[in-house]
Order: sequence, then C-alpha cells, then structure tokens
Amino acid sequence: MKKKAVVLVSGGLDSATTLAIARAESFDCYALSFDYGQQHKIELDAAQRVTQLLGVVEHKTVLIGLGGIGGSALTDDHIPVPKFGGEGIPVTYVPARNTLFLAFALGWAEVLGAEDIFIGVNAVDYSGYPDCRPEFIQAFERLARLATKAGSEGVQFKVQTPLIHRTKAEIIQQGLTLGVNYALTISCYNADDKGRACGYCDSCHIRKEGFELAGVSDPTCYVTRSMTQK
Amino acid sequence: MKKKAVVLVSGGLDSATTLAIARAESFDCYALSFDYGQQHKIELDAAQRVTQLLGVVEHKTVLIGLGGIGGSALTDDHIPVPKFGGEGIPVTYVPARNTLFLAFALGWAEVLGAEDIFIGVNAVDYSGYPDCRPEFIQAFERLARLATKAGSEGVQFKVQTPLIHRTKAEIIQQGLTLGVNYALTISCYNADDKGRACGYCDSCHIRKEGFELAGVSDPTCYVTRSMTQK
Repeated sequence: MKKKAVVLVSGGLDSATTLAIARAESFDCYALSFDYGQQHKIELDAAQRVTQLLGVVEHKTVLIGLGGIGGSALTDDHIPVPKFGGEGIPVTYVPARNTLFLAFALGWAEVLGAEDIFIGVNAVDYSGYPDCRPEFIQAFERLARLATKAGSEGVQFKVQTPLIHRTKAEIIQQGLTLGVNYALTISCYNADDKGRACGYCDSCHIRKEGFELAGVSDPTCYVTRSMTQK
Repeated sequence: MKKKAVVLVSGGLDSATTLAIARAESFDCYALSFDYGQQHKIELDAAQRVTQLLGVVEHKTVLIGLGGIGGSALTDDHIPVPKFGGEGIPVTYVPARNTLFLAFALGWAEVLGAEDIFIGVNAVDYSGYPDCRPEFIQAFERLARLATKAGSEGVQFKVQTPLIHRTKAEIIQQGLTLGVNYALTISCYNADDKGRACGYCDSCHIRKEGFELAGVSDPTCYVTRSMTQK
C-alpha cells in the first residue's frame, strides 16, 4: 500500500513543484488549499488546475477567516502590495500563516493516517518570511508529535520541505523534469481576474529571475509587456 | 498603558475563568472564539455572554472549516458523543484543534502588538487530550517565536495557562471570587438548542463533579433531572 501525504498547494510555482516531487516519491497525495481572504484568490483556480494535471486522491479547499485579523497586504486591501525591494520582512507577510496552514494539514494527516506533510517553503529565493525557515519547520515537527493523539501513540510526523535549500532556478528545472506545466501556476500577489501577473511585486520578481537563471522561457502571462521590464 | 492579551474563549467554564484571571491581571483582553463546525455551536452564544459580563476590548469569532476534515465526534455527526468513561483519548478529541486555535491567536496577537495569549487548558480534570499538556504549550511557545516577524524581532510570546495544574473545583472557586457567573457558560458537548446540558458526556461529568467538590451549588441547566443522576 502506498503511503499517504498531505500536500499544501497554493497554486504557485513552489507548491506545484512540491506536489510533483511527492508524486514522484510514490505518495498518494491529498492536496490542501486555503481560502483565507487573500486578495489574489485567483490562485485557488491555479491550485485546482495543478492538482488536476499532477493527480491527487483528493483536493480540499478550506475556508479560514484569516482576513478578519488583518495585518498584511495580502489580506487587507488598505495595505497596498509593494513593488520589489525594501529591507526586512515585507508587508506581504501574513501573521502566523504557515503555522495555521500546517496545523490544518496536521489535523487532516492525523485523520487520514498520514505521517508526511509536504510544504513548498524555500529559504533561498524567498521574501524573508520567518515561517519559511528550517528552524520553524523543525519546531513545528516537534509540536506535531506533542499535539496529536497519533503523536502520543508514536507517530513521527514529518514536514517535508524538498525545496527549502534550492534556488528558484533549480526548483523550475526539477519541476520541468517532473512534468509541471508552470503556465498553470500563479505566483503574483496582484494577479488580475484573468490570472495575469503584475510583473513587479516581490513574488513576480523572484519568479521571473528564476526562469531567466534556469535558462527556460517564462510561460507567465503578464498584464502588459512594458510593466515587466526591469 | 495596559498590556494586551488575546484570550481564547469557548463559552465553557475553563475559558470563562481564564478570561476573568486575565482581566484581574490587568490585561486589556481581546477575546477569540471559533466557529469550527462543532455540533455544540450553542457554546458560541455562551462565549458572547461571558465576554459581555467580564468585559473585553473586542470579541472576534472566526470561521474555520475544520468540519471538512472530520475525525471527531465534535465535528462529525456520524460519530456519536459517548457517555463518560472509557480508556485513552476519547473520540471527542478534535485533531490539531488547539494548535489551530493557538495559531490564530498568535496571528492576532502579532497584529495587535500583544505578547500574551491565554488559553484555559487543564491537565488535571480533563479528557486526556494531548494538546492540553504543559509540554505541548511549551513547544507552541517555542514555535511562536520562530514563526513570526515579531518573534524574529525579539518578542517573547507567552502562552499563559493559569488553570493547567488546578482541579476543576479549584477553578470554580477562583472563578467565583472573580465574579464569573457559571450559569452563563456551557460545557456540554451535547447541549440542546436552549443550551441545556445532557448531563452524561465527559464534559458534563467533569463539570458536575467540580461543583460538588467545590461545595458550590451547580447552576447548570440540565435537560432532565433524571438524566443527571449518577
């Protein structure tokens, strides 16, 4: 019998690659996405396309009222998404987001009898979010074993982060060998209602540079060509 | 300026007492409740009454789609809530519930600029849930500091658990001295739509015994008197 894994799928480039890796490692994948009040809700359509392309046993999209808490450009439309650059952790940081996402994944994993949770966090070409770092992931694994009935019965939950030490270019190269179609994915924080990327936010900048360094043509659909010039 | 605290308020006896303690310690309290698909949603009305009685700056009730995950008698109506007794962790355990609740509280605390989160977990007269134990709470505190922007800037989040080592009787006695009206609270997992308790579930049993041992008359409204006989 194949092992089960819960895979967090946002609709972006990293999580699509992570799902492809989990599939390649022969896991039966249970995809989990969140409608958390994000401005760029169009990414949920992308998550649907990605899970259909790569194949999952089930794909759940869970509603969580994170918007009510505010404090981020991604969930509060009074805070504009900035252009690339600036120092420190950007205003696109969503307080406790990955803690919440992993907590949900943990609950579902326990119900499914899965020990593995895959998350596409990356600590190389990323925005500096604290909840993407290896020490955060390790602390969550430790918590998971204490938090659950399964953990108290000896299950060693593992949070698998296959991308954590890779550059965006390496991620793209691996994803292409595993059949990921990046045209289906959306990374932009400002995507319009047709899913076209703005070309200037943090996330667009990192993604665009990834395709350049990977030596691969960028399949992203941008709003206008002129906005994507660096 | 008074310090702010996020206080998890379920509508039950423990969280009402915890809120009263946080108020007595001069915190400005921000109450947080969850509509997570629980069968006993009537407890949210109790949470409203309790926060009104004790006084909070704000009370937020957040919707989270935990019901979709299932695996618990409290969120899946195919699994009946059992009578008191039995070995091990009961089927009323909700996978990863306190991890999720604390993750939300952490996000809100960060937005508010609060360092303290109060939760009414108890490891003495309780149902054996793993996410009520001190080691779980300590692991969450550690995680909180790594998970957040505030933590990476030096904020030492504290998860305050004033009830963790107390008996139910001690909790009730302290709550009464702080002005908690327990008639407003609902502990029952099976409460009817008028908020009347079943008298036989785990939670009712522990609560009833607490009032007896505290030597205080039990203000709980039960469905029928005969059902409450032991």
